Amino acid sequence: MPTTTWNRHHILSLADFTTTEYDTVLQTAASFQEVLSRRTKKVPTLQGQVVANLFFESSTRTRSSFELAAKRLSADTLNFAAATSSMTKGETILDTAKTYLAMGTDIMVVRHREAGVPNAIAAEMDRLGVRVSVLNAGDGQHEHPSQGLLDLFTLCTLIDPASPRLELLKGKKIAIVGDILHSRVARSNIWSLIASGAQVHLAAPPTLLPKLFAEYILEEAGARNQEFIISSSPTPHSPLPTPQLFLHWQLEPALQDADFVMTLRLQKERMTAHLLPSLREYHQLFGITRTKLQLCKPSVKVLHPGPVNRGVEISSELMDDPEFSLIQSQVTSGVAVRMALLYLLGSGKT
Amino acid sequence: MPTTTWNRHHILSLADFTTTEYDTVLQTAASFQEVLSRRTKKVPTLQGQVVANLFFESSTRTRSSFELAAKRLSADTLNFAAATSSMTKGETILDTAKTYLAMGTDIMVVRHREAGVPNAIAAEMDRLGVRVSVLNAGDGQHEHPSQGLLDLFTLCTLIDPASPRLELLKGKKIAIVGDILHSRVARSNIWSLIASGAQVHLAAPPTLLPKLFAEYILEEAGARNQEFIISSSPTPHSPLPTPQLFLHWQLEPALQDADFVMTLRLQKERMTAHLLPSLREYHQLFGITRTKLQLCKPSVKVLHPGPVNRGVEISSELMDDPEFSLIQSQVTSGVAVRMALLYLLGSGKT
Amino acid sequence: MPTTTWNRHHILSLADFTTTEYDTVLQTAASFQEVLSRRTKKVPTLQGQVVANLFFESSTRTRSSFELAAKRLSADTLNFAAATSSMTKGETILDTAKTYLAMGTDIMVVRHREAGVPNAIAAEMDRLGVRVSVLNAGDGQHEHPSQGLLDLFTLCTLIDPASPRLELLKGKKIAIVGDILHSRVARSNIWSLIASGAQVHLAAPPTLLPKLFAEYILEEAGARNQEFIISSSPTPHSPLPTPQLFLHWQLEPALQDADFVMTLRLQKERMTAHLLPSLREYHQLFGITRTKLQLCKPSVKVLHPGPVNRGVEISSELMDDPEFSLIQSQVTSGVAVRMALLYLLGSGKT
Repeated sequence: MPTTTWNRHHILSLADFTTTEYDTVLQTAASFQEVLSRRTKKVPTLQGQVVANLFFESSTRTRSSFELAAKRLSADTLNFAAATSSMTKGETILDTAKTYLAMGTDIMVVRHREAGVPNAIAAEMDRLGVRVSVLNAGDGQHEHPSQGLLDLFTLCTLIDPASPRLELLKGKKIAIVGDILHSRVARSNIWSLIASGAQVHLAAPPTLLPKLFAEYILEEAGARNQEFIISSSPTPHSPLPTPQLFLHWQLEPALQDADFVMTLRLQKERMTAHLLPSLREYHQLFGITRTKLQLCKPSVKVLHPGPVNRGVEISSELMDDPEFSLIQSQVTSGVAVRMALLYLLGSGKT
Repeated sequence: MPTTTWNRHHILSLADFTTTEYDTVLQTAASFQEVLSRRTKKVPTLQGQVVANLFFESSTRTRSSFELAAKRLSADTLNFAAATSSMTKGETILDTAKTYLAMGTDIMVVRHREAGVPNAIAAEMDRLGVRVSVLNAGDGQHEHPSQGLLDLFTLCTLIDPASPRLELLKGKKIAIVGDILHSRVARSNIWSLIASGAQVHLAAPPTLLPKLFAEYILEEAGARNQEFIISSSPTPHSPLPTPQLFLHWQLEPALQDADFVMTLRLQKERMTAHLLPSLREYHQLFGITRTKLQLCKPSVKVLHPGPVNRGVEISSELMDDPEFSLIQSQVTSGVAVRMALLYLLGSGKT
Repeated sequence: MPTTTWNRHHILSLADFTTTEYDTVLQTAASFQEVLSRRTKKVPTLQGQVVANLFFESSTRTRSSFELAAKRLSADTLNFAAATSSMTKGETILDTAKTYLAMGTDIMVVRHREAGVPNAIAAEMDRLGVRVSVLNAGDGQHEHPSQGLLDLFTLCTLIDPASPRLELLKGKKIAIVGDILHSRVARSNIWSLIASGAQVHLAAPPTLLPKLFAEYILEEAGARNQEFIISSSPTPHSPLPTPQLFLHWQLEPALQDADFVMTLRLQKERMTAHLLPSLREYHQLFGITRTKLQLCKPSVKVLHPGPVNRGVEISSELMDDPEFSLIQSQVTSGVAVRMALLYLLGSGKT
């Protein structure tokens, strides 16, 4: 492992991550990626420590990824699933978290359908003066920082596998396409990509990307003295000196000359809420296909956080095409990045 | 670990526990409590042994506690949850237990909503002449011995952390407040506290503490030649030479000069069964608050087995007050005590 | 472990297993059976490898058996249960499998209610050119090869514990009784028993053993150039030189002089589908009892894959009689055989 100074105690959001922190995660994950290519894919780093997966919202993919990451660091894992939980017995979320604290948990990986729950647990742990770390594994429509970091790692290792670092994305055009409004994945990715100096182009129907979204982002960024420009004018062609965020209500200007296309999962519930006419029309307008990719750079790659609705966000054919799809690579990166996060949070503890 | 002779093969009830057994559990748990304060909280004691958690009734807290205890002893764990079980396929409980036996289980931790199920499984294992141990993790309204032992450990380590032992509670006044009738926690605690020489005061509304309850306890105790007096006369002030059990239908005489107050979880179903008027009235009469604690000794501490209905059994404010609340300490003790129990049952096996 | 050459990459069916393969599994399982009799029942063989249990159909018994087998080989395990899966989010089965592949899974143990799912996943893995092995843990009414192999191991170790091998069953008369038509267990057992040279007698009511079943078996066998005779004439007395499969619509000719009786689980749904008159009548005609066993050889033993409907497929009394019942032995064999299968699939990987 690289010797680093890591001072962040909880990982709740990427909004205030520093370049040094991004680079530390990327380098640490690269070391673990190497471990994972060995026959014995285990290291004793977190032996005797306890990682509790508190999944108040059910998940297969993210929970398995965190569980495997923890096991490969030789940690003991506890799984809490909402279905069989004492939540149904009227206990509060904070009391559940404090129970796992009292059992000796070192790191809590928390998913909840409401935004802010991981922050609330982290605040309570800090108030109690205990050293437990909280890692946000997705909270409502707020953030999903480990997904943002694994996407970043996937892109950076593609460019320089030996030395992934944030600056590699400087000036790259990256399109994020789909249900931006409801996506915690998009909200985490926006911070990391802007921080890298990439040009980030959001594309969605107006119901899934209201103008108000720009103000939300600016407000969050302003609170942290981050400087970047948000624009909804379609001028994607000119190379830009400073990082920028663009909003588009059509797909084409976002795809034009793009280096990478990030597609987002479309929740079927959006249909019933009358935000979209039909899945078929959505696919026609915003679904990514090989034909539409011809607008992008020839070397373009496509990402999706999964699970994929084939033929909706992305054509089935394109999803399976290793020339364009980074989807499997994202899953693999996920284990390495989550090992890195658990390692960085856990290794300081004594 | 202390070198001890431990002959009990199953842990099903505290009704016939001896002073030596209590002290062995307390001392062994104290050793493990020390292990848990190290960075590497694992010992290889039960490596290669299998602990099966057969939870026919779902539970988060107790199952996690046993699972963590087993993992910290390096045992392999199997989790059986009723929801996905073959029980729905018509197999009997004993056949399920025998299946886990045949797979090579060394210790079965059993929870069931019916009293007597762990005893029945233990009897079947003995009949078959196998060395599998059964540990009752809560059976209906009968007993919850590991909870009783962790409560005992919590109290004794508070008085003498270096050397917790049963005699430390001699002459202490301990109030148990709440739904005594339906509580397996109370039923286990009564045996350990009486055995310690404490003065045990039960307080509850008459519907949750019928006079018949005294006869049940006396009958059980008589069967084991235990000597103590059950009284429902409110004479809590005079120091008493022999252990006694008092029944109260008001809170105040139980709290008067108490050293410890154990609150019990109130099942919301009691309301619908017309055993209680309302949660609000229950809290007014039997809920523990800072104000009511002024009746107790100034050093009084409050326990609760969790999960807590805040504002019902105990005020939210009091629950979070580290000066009075031992609730988090109970959870921590739970892991150490369950490690001790698994160790004592498992280490004799070869 | 015996040094063997094992070339099969997936275990999906027993229809084309060779004698050498059967014998390798039997000998490897015998080695692990020996490991399981030690105090420390673990070997480091698969340390750092990942076994994913993808149970799209829920199961307690088989999943626990595979999980324990994997843990005793020191593999890390991931459990996927359909109930909390992303399947409900519209992802395809192959995409779920590919996600576990991308996480670094080495062996996938797959159960699904539809026949052919494990084969489809294996085909996809091969198409992708990856080294992941797929093990069929039961697919619809098709096959359950690990159950067939553990039944075989149970029979062969009974005859020669030191050296179980396929030829030990040559000429033995083995009755398979019950719901043949819907049984994946029967379909796997037929291949292994025929391969051993045993005389296999199927007995069931006509609704659960249609004549068409013979044609299905012959077709499958013909495709693999296997030679054996299927007969529905009741001539069980004469010793026969070549392996044969007999169909009976009454119990008695199948039991006559049988060495072993395999009973099958009766799904209660068969009643509602009007395939059977009543459980009671079924038990009278085809349920195995001590009385009916008097038709068999005196040394006869009875098997059942579990979970058992006591008093339906087999009398409660007989099930618990260690003189006749091999049911517990089958469960124990299951762990050893599954360790062998995971070992043979996993040890070649580097």
